[in-house]
Amino acid sequence: MYSLTALQKIVTDRLEEEARQIGNRHPANLYRPVQYTLDMGGKRLRPVMVLMACDLFGGSIDAAMNAALAIELFHNFTLLHDDIMDKATVRRNRPTVHKQFNENIAILSGDAMSNLAYLYLLKSQSPALHGIISLFAETAVEICEGQQLDMDYENRPDVSISDYLKMIRQKTAVLIACSLKTGALIGNARAGDAAHLYDFGINLGMAFQLQDDLLDVYADQDNFGKKTGGDILANKKTFLLLKSFELASPGQKEELLSWIAAASFNPDDKIAAVKKIYTDLQVGQVAGEAIDHFYGKALAELDLVTIETARKEELLSLARNIMKRKN
Amino acid sequence: MYSLTALQKIVTDRLEEEARQIGNRHPANLYRPVQYTLDMGGKRLRPVMVLMACDLFGGSIDAAMNAALAIELFHNFTLLHDDIMDKATVRRNRPTVHKQFNENIAILSGDAMSNLAYLYLLKSQSPALHGIISLFAETAVEICEGQQLDMDYENRPDVSISDYLKMIRQKTAVLIACSLKTGALIGNARAGDAAHLYDFGINLGMAFQLQDDLLDVYADQDNFGKKTGGDILANKKTFLLLKSFELASPGQKEELLSWIAAASFNPDDKIAAVKKIYTDLQVGQVAGEAIDHFYGKALAELDLVTIETARKEELLSLARNIMKRKN
Repeated sequence: MYSLTALQKIVTDRLEEEARQIGNRHPANLYRPVQYTLDMGGKRLRPVMVLMACDLFGGSIDAAMNAALAIELFHNFTLLHDDIMDKATVRRNRPTVHKQFNENIAILSGDAMSNLAYLYLLKSQSPALHGIISLFAETAVEICEGQQLDMDYENRPDVSISDYLKMIRQKTAVLIACSLKTGALIGNARAGDAAHLYDFGINLGMAFQLQDDLLDVYADQDNFGKKTGGDILANKKTFLLLKSFELASPGQKEELLSWIAAASFNPDDKIAAVKKIYTDLQVGQVAGEAIDHFYGKALAELDLVTIETARKEELLSLARNIMKRKN
Repeated sequence: MYSLTALQKIVTDRLEEEARQIGNRHPANLYRPVQYTLDMGGKRLRPVMVLMACDLFGGSIDAAMNAALAIELFHNFTLLHDDIMDKATVRRNRPTVHKQFNENIAILSGDAMSNLAYLYLLKSQSPALHGIISLFAETAVEICEGQQLDMDYENRPDVSISDYLKMIRQKTAVLIACSLKTGALIGNARAGDAAHLYDFGINLGMAFQLQDDLLDVYADQDNFGKKTGGDILANKKTFLLLKSFELASPGQKEELLSWIAAASFNPDDKIAAVKKIYTDLQVGQVAGEAIDHFYGKALAELDLVTIETARKEELLSLARNIMKRKN
């Protein structure tokens, strides 16, 4: 079996090569932005999951490679279009595609990536290919729904925790689940095992996104890699903010709303004030419990996969790694 | 066999029903724009072609319906995103999606349509489904390339007729060809026949787009349905303009360039002046010859399809209909 580190290296090298080849295609204004996007790096979590899930059932990682590339292309397409919609100017310390090129090129290169993803997927050799492509297309539509919910929530005053969990499920968790199930199907897993791996992915994805919310406020800034408090400054309706609205006293609620409405403020003051309310209401602990809940469910699903426990070690190690946990 | 009129009615009714169902899905801000786009109407040329090509080989049009819907969804997705890129405010007398809703919703609804198209296609029952989906994805990528070329040409002074033909092939002809071949494959056509039908579609698509260029300048305005001269006002690099650059005297070239560069002008003056140059250079006739060339090639390809001539009558009638020809 391949280790997490080995798979990360294999995926990174292959993506570099594919990006180079795609970047040489014509018209350059369509394909160079695709290369630029793929070259942005990142943890390559989703393609690694495709290969690892295939490997888990004894499948060849070569057979799963095109599906892994397809999912990474699709993921990068969603980041590209999300950045246009969010008017984000920087991603991973580089200008976003619509800043580096222009908005029309960003829209169209994203469209090309989305369709290129299907072309990669179609190159996969698997008796389950019809089901794999269907899962992919369903997941793609769900991700669009999740992104729309995220945009809708920005303008809605009444977002509940349950609304929020639905949104992050569609925006984040389904693609992680799809990656794992796709790998499992290419590895000829039994239907039941593939389904458990999907649910492992959903719950891991939920835990991962909730942790991202938590780290944005409470991370050790040096390890986090970016400035904390970004979500607070952007008034993002995270688990922490929504839970605070649920638990806040009238006075705390008023204070939160006034910071959200404030047109001009010292950023550090806003972060400190909102963070103090979070801490007073202990929403960090509530988030931690929710993370434990989803992480626990993820592990329970993995437990139900009918292969020997020793083979699951790499997937467990990946889960611990992204959740920064020891167990 | 079904007549053109019968198929148009079947497709229109079914699209209306699908649009209604899609429009009821959640989140509404994602799906209502899809319904709005599908309700825009139009000739429904591409889905009719899918059904007609299937019918041609004796296949059931029910079996081809999901593919027909997929292609119409995809076509409407390209119109939606193109309208954002072109900053078009009106399509078929209604505000474009990004005007009626907003730009983010337009981007995301387009993304959803593109992926919904695959979901419809995947519902098709055909032993050739892998090939059908591959053709669709390849066509989708080609259309993105064609749209990028179109945008690139806006800023290039040196676009040749051959560049232009390549662009309209990718932007327009490949989807018509894909529609016909998809129907043929679902109708269990032989590979050679499906290929001839594809080439029929390519050549018909080329003739159709060239005629569109010609009508934009020379149409009888009442029958054309929109104001003529739009391409001239927008400085669009059409066949007529590019051919004029090829044939123009230094004086005519200078006049054309000065109209293109002009920041303020009376629209009717600009249309009349450019049209006069076109007429003096007889580029309308040259375009007419090119249309005849591609239309003739289309008919020759249809001729090569190995089924009885009588069965080809509806497809011929469709070709004549869109080309407004008697033979």
